[in-house]
Amino acid sequence: MNDRVTHAKQVLASQNIELPSWAFGNSGTRFKVFAQQGVPRDPFEKIADAAQVNAYTGAAGSVALHIPWDKVEDYAALAAHAEALGVRIGTINSNTFQDDDYMLGSVCHPDPAVRRKATAHLLECVDIMDATGSTDLKLWFADGTNYPGQDSIADRQDRLAEVLATVYDRLGDGQRLLLEYKLFEPSFYTTDVPDWGTAYAHCLKLGPKAQVVIDTGHHAPGTNIEFIVAILLREGKLGGFDFNSRFYADDDLMVGSADPFQLFRIMHELASQDVVGPDSGIAYMLDQCHNIEAKIPGQIRSVMNVQEATAKALLVDTEALSAAQASGDVLEANAVLMDAYNTDVRPLLAELRGELGLAADPMRAYAASGYAEAIREDRLGGQAAGWGA
Amino acid sequence: MNDRVTHAKQVLASQNIELPSWAFGNSGTRFKVFAQQGVPRDPFEKIADAAQVNAYTGAAGSVALHIPWDKVEDYAALAAHAEALGVRIGTINSNTFQDDDYMLGSVCHPDPAVRRKATAHLLECVDIMDATGSTDLKLWFADGTNYPGQDSIADRQDRLAEVLATVYDRLGDGQRLLLEYKLFEPSFYTTDVPDWGTAYAHCLKLGPKAQVVIDTGHHAPGTNIEFIVAILLREGKLGGFDFNSRFYADDDLMVGSADPFQLFRIMHELASQDVVGPDSGIAYMLDQCHNIEAKIPGQIRSVMNVQEATAKALLVDTEALSAAQASGDVLEANAVLMDAYNTDVRPLLAELRGELGLAADPMRAYAASGYAEAIREDRLGGQAAGWGA
Amino acid sequence: MNDRVTHAKQVLASQNIELPSWAFGNSGTRFKVFAQQGVPRDPFEKIADAAQVNAYTGAAGSVALHIPWDKVEDYAALAAHAEALGVRIGTINSNTFQDDDYMLGSVCHPDPAVRRKATAHLLECVDIMDATGSTDLKLWFADGTNYPGQDSIADRQDRLAEVLATVYDRLGDGQRLLLEYKLFEPSFYTTDVPDWGTAYAHCLKLGPKAQVVIDTGHHAPGTNIEFIVAILLREGKLGGFDFNSRFYADDDLMVGSADPFQLFRIMHELASQDVVGPDSGIAYMLDQCHNIEAKIPGQIRSVMNVQEATAKALLVDTEALSAAQASGDVLEANAVLMDAYNTDVRPLLAELRGELGLAADPMRAYAASGYAEAIREDRLGGQAAGWGA
Amino acid sequence: MNDRVTHAKQVLASQNIELPSWAFGNSGTRFKVFAQQGVPRDPFEKIADAAQVNAYTGAAGSVALHIPWDKVEDYAALAAHAEALGVRIGTINSNTFQDDDYMLGSVCHPDPAVRRKATAHLLECVDIMDATGSTDLKLWFADGTNYPGQDSIADRQDRLAEVLATVYDRLGDGQRLLLEYKLFEPSFYTTDVPDWGTAYAHCLKLGPKAQVVIDTGHHAPGTNIEFIVAILLREGKLGGFDFNSRFYADDDLMVGSADPFQLFRIMHELASQDVVGPDSGIAYMLDQCHNIEAKIPGQIRSVMNVQEATAKALLVDTEALSAAQASGDVLEANAVLMDAYNTDVRPLLAELRGELGLAADPMRAYAASGYAEAIREDRLGGQAAGWGA
Repeated sequence: MNDRVTHAKQVLASQNIELPSWAFGNSGTRFKVFAQQGVPRDPFEKIADAAQVNAYTGAAGSVALHIPWDKVEDYAALAAHAEALGVRIGTINSNTFQDDDYMLGSVCHPDPAVRRKATAHLLECVDIMDATGSTDLKLWFADGTNYPGQDSIADRQDRLAEVLATVYDRLGDGQRLLLEYKLFEPSFYTTDVPDWGTAYAHCLKLGPKAQVVIDTGHHAPGTNIEFIVAILLREGKLGGFDFNSRFYADDDLMVGSADPFQLFRIMHELASQDVVGPDSGIAYMLDQCHNIEAKIPGQIRSVMNVQEATAKALLVDTEALSAAQASGDVLEANAVLMDAYNTDVRPLLAELRGELGLAADPMRAYAASGYAEAIREDRLGGQAAGWGA
Repeated sequence: MNDRVTHAKQVLASQNIELPSWAFGNSGTRFKVFAQQGVPRDPFEKIADAAQVNAYTGAAGSVALHIPWDKVEDYAALAAHAEALGVRIGTINSNTFQDDDYMLGSVCHPDPAVRRKATAHLLECVDIMDATGSTDLKLWFADGTNYPGQDSIADRQDRLAEVLATVYDRLGDGQRLLLEYKLFEPSFYTTDVPDWGTAYAHCLKLGPKAQVVIDTGHHAPGTNIEFIVAILLREGKLGGFDFNSRFYADDDLMVGSADPFQLFRIMHELASQDVVGPDSGIAYMLDQCHNIEAKIPGQIRSVMNVQEATAKALLVDTEALSAAQASGDVLEANAVLMDAYNTDVRPLLAELRGELGLAADPMRAYAASGYAEAIREDRLGGQAAGWGA
Repeated sequence: MNDRVTHAKQVLASQNIELPSWAFGNSGTRFKVFAQQGVPRDPFEKIADAAQVNAYTGAAGSVALHIPWDKVEDYAALAAHAEALGVRIGTINSNTFQDDDYMLGSVCHPDPAVRRKATAHLLECVDIMDATGSTDLKLWFADGTNYPGQDSIADRQDRLAEVLATVYDRLGDGQRLLLEYKLFEPSFYTTDVPDWGTAYAHCLKLGPKAQVVIDTGHHAPGTNIEFIVAILLREGKLGGFDFNSRFYADDDLMVGSADPFQLFRIMHELASQDVVGPDSGIAYMLDQCHNIEAKIPGQIRSVMNVQEATAKALLVDTEALSAAQASGDVLEANAVLMDAYNTDVRPLLAELRGELGLAADPMRAYAASGYAEAIREDRLGGQAAGWGA
Repeated sequence: MNDRVTHAKQVLASQNIELPSWAFGNSGTRFKVFAQQGVPRDPFEKIADAAQVNAYTGAAGSVALHIPWDKVEDYAALAAHAEALGVRIGTINSNTFQDDDYMLGSVCHPDPAVRRKATAHLLECVDIMDATGSTDLKLWFADGTNYPGQDSIADRQDRLAEVLATVYDRLGDGQRLLLEYKLFEPSFYTTDVPDWGTAYAHCLKLGPKAQVVIDTGHHAPGTNIEFIVAILLREGKLGGFDFNSRFYADDDLMVGSADPFQLFRIMHELASQDVVGPDSGIAYMLDQCHNIEAKIPGQIRSVMNVQEATAKALLVDTEALSAAQASGDVLEANAVLMDAYNTDVRPLLAELRGELGLAADPMRAYAASGYAEAIREDRLGGQAAGWGA
C-alpha cells in the first residue's frame, strides 16, 4: 500500500488538466445566458483567471484557446502573458458553427464555397498553432441535419473526409489533429461525426497524427465510456478528453458531479494502462459551462474532482484485482475496485498539496484570496466574453 | 368505410391546431441562432404570418401569445388585428426564465422576493387573458437545479404549490391553468415539474380548472406518450398539447417529422375517445423551432402532418379493432391499426380542402402566393423577433 | 459532527433491509440460467440462507415471500422456522405472469375469466398474509402489450382498477397493498403500470392502505429517482423500495454497484425526511438477481452497500446544507453534500458492528464460516429453486 | 414515376429476406416462455414452417440455422429437405452462451480452457457451413461482465481478437465471418462487442472476409441506425442485418412494428446505394421472437413489412431529392422523402405478387391454407423447439 501511495503521489504531482478559456466567459442554454460579474472581456483576462485555477491546484498548467473567440493580434504576446502567469497555451479549438453561412453545415455543407470557407478557418487554426507553439488542433463539427432527407449522409462523409485530409496535410511535425465526436446537438437528426467509430474510421485513414477525442458528455444514454477508452487505447487512437458531466444530454456540468463513480472507472482504465501522466500523449482537458455557479471556483472544483478520481484509481490493488479476475471471483474483483473507490483520498491530496507548497484546500484558499472581489470591481465596462465573442 | 370517411372529413373540417407566435421569430440552439429574412418584428407581424398558415390550411385559427415577448400596449387592437386576418388569440404562455433574477429558479426560487416577482408576472398573464379574451394560461417553468444538493427538492415543491394556488385563485370563470411538464433543460439535475405525474398531482389539488399539458418532446427516452394521453383522459386532466417532434431531447422539430407513427398512435388514442375536435376542451397547439427551415411553410407542413395523422386515426376500423382485441388476436388487432396507418390520406385531405374552398396543396399555394418574397422586402430594418425579444 | 455520528449509528443500528427469498434461488436472463451449487430447494432453505445474511449484517431481519414460488403447506411452520433463525416473514409478493393463461395479461386481460383467476390468486396472497402475519402485499403486474393496437390502453386501466379495488377491499386492519410500477419488460409496447404517476393515481383512488413501491431499476433512462422519492413522500404515498441497480434496463444487479452516488442521493432524500428507520412505514427491500455471483455473499454485499449509502446520508451537515441552499451558493451546497458522500464510512460501520456483537467485516466472516461449503455438500439432489419453481 | 415503379418491382421481385429457424420455436422473456401449439420439434419441421413463409411471400428463400439448436446427424439430408420445400440453408449462427462453462464468457473468458471450447464450437460451425454449403458464419457473443472490476476490458479484447483470428483463418473460399454487436444483455456492465465501432475495428484487422452485422434492436436509445448503414457501406464492411424492432431494449418484435419510418429510412439508405438485391453481398435476415403472436404469420407479416419499406424506398424521387439537397431546400428535400413514405405501396406489392403467381394477400392466403390447424394436430408429443433445445 505504501508503494502504491508513493506512486500515486508521483503521478498526481505531474498530472495536468487543461482548462478551456471559454469556461471563464458567460455561457448558458438556448433559454438564457445569465451574466455573471467579473467575467473576462478578452483572452488575456481569461488566461489570468485560468492561472488562478493553476495557482491553487498546481494541476492546470495549460489553457485551451477557441478560435475565433480568442483571436488576438499578437499571439506571441498572449503566450508570454500566459507564461508570466505560470501557464502555457494548449489546444487550439476551431469553430465552424457560428457564421451565418454554416446554417446547413460547414465542412459537410452541400455548397463547396462554404466548405472552402470552413477549410480556410481550420488552416488558420494551424497557423495559430504555429504562432503559439500549440501542438494540438481540436476539431468538433456541429455539422449534421435536422430532417430525414435533408442531405445525403454518404455525400457528407465524402466532403468531411476531403476537408480533413486537407487539414491533415497542413500539419507540421509534432502537430496533431484531434477529432471529437458527439451524438447530437445542435443537429437533431444526423450528426456527421456522431460516435467514436466514425471518428476512428476517419483518423485511421488520415494517419498517425490524427486521433480521437472523447467528450464525456457526448454519448447516447447507457454508453460505457470506459469501454471506449479501452478500445481507443488498444488501437493507439486515444488523443484526448473533454471532461464534464451530464445527467441527460451534453449538460456540460462540472466533471465528477453527476456520476463520480463513472469518472473513477474511466481513470481506472487509464491508470491501468499507465497513461494518466503528461507523457502519455493524451490531452486531458475540461470542457464545461458554469451557467449558474461561479466560474473560477467551478474550475477549481472540477480539477479537484479529477484529481480525486485519479487518486482512487491509482490506489487500486492491481495485483489483487488481477488475481480475482483470473480466478473468476466476481464479488472479490468488484470488491477490490470498490475498496479503492470508497477510500477517502482527500487527506492524501491535501498532503500532496502541502509537499508542493500549495494550500491544502484550494477552494478555501481561492475564496480567501480576494481575487473574485477584485475582478468584480476591475472588470466594469467592456463586453463580457461569451460563446458569441 | 364510407361512413368512416364522412365522419373523418367532418372532424377534420372542424379541427383546430393553434400556432405559437414565437415559431415565426428566430430561434436556435445555445450554439447559434441563424437569422432568417422576413422575420416578424412585433406581435402584429407574427399574427399576420400565422394567419397565412390558417389561410392555406383552414385548420389553424388561433395564435398563442408568449409574455413578455408579445407584450403590446393595446391588446384589444391586437385581438382586432387577429380577427381581421381571420384568426383569434389563443393561449397565453408565461415566461419566468429570462430575467437575471431567475438564475436559480422563479416560482421555486429559495428567495421569496424572486417568487413574488414570478407570481406577479403570472398574475399579469391572467390580466392579459382578461384583456384578450384568452381562456387558457399555459405554465411551463424552467425551474430546477443543476447539482445535487443545490436546493431542497421537497421545499421547492412546497414553494411551487403555493404559487400555483395563488394563480389558480385569480382565474376567472371559464379560465384554465394548463401545467406543462418537462424532463430536463434548461435544468440538468432536477426539474421541478419533470413528468406528468408531478403535474397531475399539483393539478389535482388545485381543482377542476387546472389541467396537464403534454409537450411531445418533453419525455425520457422510451416513454410511451399515448399511454399518458390515455391516463390523463381517464383522469379528466388532459388540458392540451404542445406538438413537435424529437429524435433525442427537446429538439422542437416539426411535428410528425421524426416519428410519424407515434403521432398517429397519439391521435388514435384521442380519436378513440372522440376528443379530437374543438369542443373537447383540449388545446391542441404546435410548439416548434424552425431553426434551419423557413418558418411559415414549416408551420404549414406541421399542420398538415397533424391533419394526416388525424385522418389516419379517424379511418381506423374500430369495430374490427375491438373484435380482434377482445378475441386476443394480436396480429389481427395490430393489422387493423396498421391498415389505417398505411393508408395514403393525402387525397382525402385534398378533397376536403377543395370542399372548404382551399387549394389542394397548401405548400404549393403558399409558395405561389408571393408572401414570402413580400415580407423579405417589407421587413427590412427593426429588430427581428426571437426568444429574447 | 459527534452528534451526527451518534445519531447515524442509532439509525443504522435499527435499519432493516428485507431480503427476497428468490434471490437465493437460481436466476438468469432469457438466454440462460446458470445453475449454482448449494442453491436452496424449498422456502425453508431459502429462509435459512437469508438468516445467514442477517447473522452477519444484523440489518436484514425479514424475508419476503413470492407466491406461488414459496407456497408451503404450513405457513405457521415456515414462520416458526424463520423466527428460530432470527428473522421474520415480510412482504408477500404475488405472481400473475407465469401461468399459460397470462400470455396476454392477468388483471388487465381482455378475458374476464383470466382476470378472475388472477384476482383469486391475489386474494389467496392476502390469505397467506393472514397466515404469516405479513402486513404488506406487493403487487407487480407483467401486464401490457407488445404491439400497437393489440389491446385498448384505456380498457385495460378500467380492468386494473376493478381488480385492485377488489383486493383492496379484502385487506384487513394493518394490511397494505403496495403497487409497483415498471417501464417495460416483459411487455414491450405498453405496460399497464409503467410509471409512478400511474401507480399513484390508482393508489389515490383506492385509499390510505394503498401505496407506491419504487424499484430502482424500473425507470426510463435519465429518470431522477430521488425526485420521485421526494414527491411520493410529500404525497404520503411512498410504501416501499425494491433496491437493485442497473446500467441499462432492469438489470437487477447488486444495489449500489452501478451508481453508488445515486443510491446515496436517494438515501439522502429519505434521511432528510427522517424516514430511514423501521418506524417509517416504508418497506425497504432488495430485489436482485445474482446471475453470476454467489448469492448469499451477493446479498451481504448489497446490504452493506445500502448501509454505507445510508451512513453517508446521515452524515450530511444539514444545517450547513440548508444555509448554503438558502443563500443560493450552488458550489457550497453541492460541496456540503459531496463532503458526506466522499467520507469513508466503513470504519464507522465496522465500529457499529462491534458494538452490536457482529464481526467488523461481514463478507470475510461469512466466508470463514464454512456455510457455503456446507450447503454445497448438503443440498445435493432435489430441484434447485428458481423463478419457475 | 413509371420507370421508378418498374425498377421497384424488379428489385422487389428479387429481394430475399432470410428467416431464422429459431423464430418458429418457442421463445419468451426471463419471466416466462409461453408455449404455443404446433411448434416444430426439430430442424426439419422448422424448415417446413419457414418454407410456408416463402410460399406465400416469395421473398424468403433461405433459412438460417442456429448451432447447436439445429444440429442434425445429416446436414445433406437437411439441405435436401429444404430444397424440396423451395428454400435453402443460409447463415450458420453460433451459440457460445448456453453451456454452464460460459457463465463468465466464452471467447473472452479468463480461462483459456473455456476459450478453447468456444473456439472449437466456432470451428465446428465452419464445418457445418462446409456440409450445408452455407457461406456466412454469424457470430454474436453474449460475452461481457456485470460488475465494474469483474474482468479486464482490455484483456478481453485481446482474447477476442485471438479467437476471431483463428476462426477467420479457417474460413474457406467464398465463406465469410459476420460479426454482430449488441449494446447489452445478457451482460449488464460491459459487453465485449457493444457497438459497430468495435465490430468494425476487429473486422478491419481480420481482413476482407470479415464484415459487420447490424441487428436493428442492439443499439443505445437515440442511435441513428441509417447513419451506421451509410458508414459501413462507405467502408465496405456491411455484411448483413438482423431485422426486428424495439421500443426499449432488444425487444425482438416484428420488424417495422415499432418504428416503420425508421425501417423506411434504413431501406432508403440501402436503396440509394443500390444494395437491396441479392447480389449486394448483404445478408438480410429476420431475427425476432414471436412471444405472444403466432409464429408463421408473424414471420409473413415481418417479410411484408420489409417489402413495404423497401417499396417506398425504391419510389423515392432521387433526382428531385438530390436537387433539393444541393440547393439547401430543407423542407423540399424532406418533402420528397416523405412523399415516398406516405405512398400506399400495398397495391403495388399485391400486383407484383399476382405477376409472380402468388396470392395478393399472403396473410389471408396462409390463414386459409389450413397449415396452422394441421401442425397443431400433427405435432403432438415430442419436445417443442425453443432457445434451449
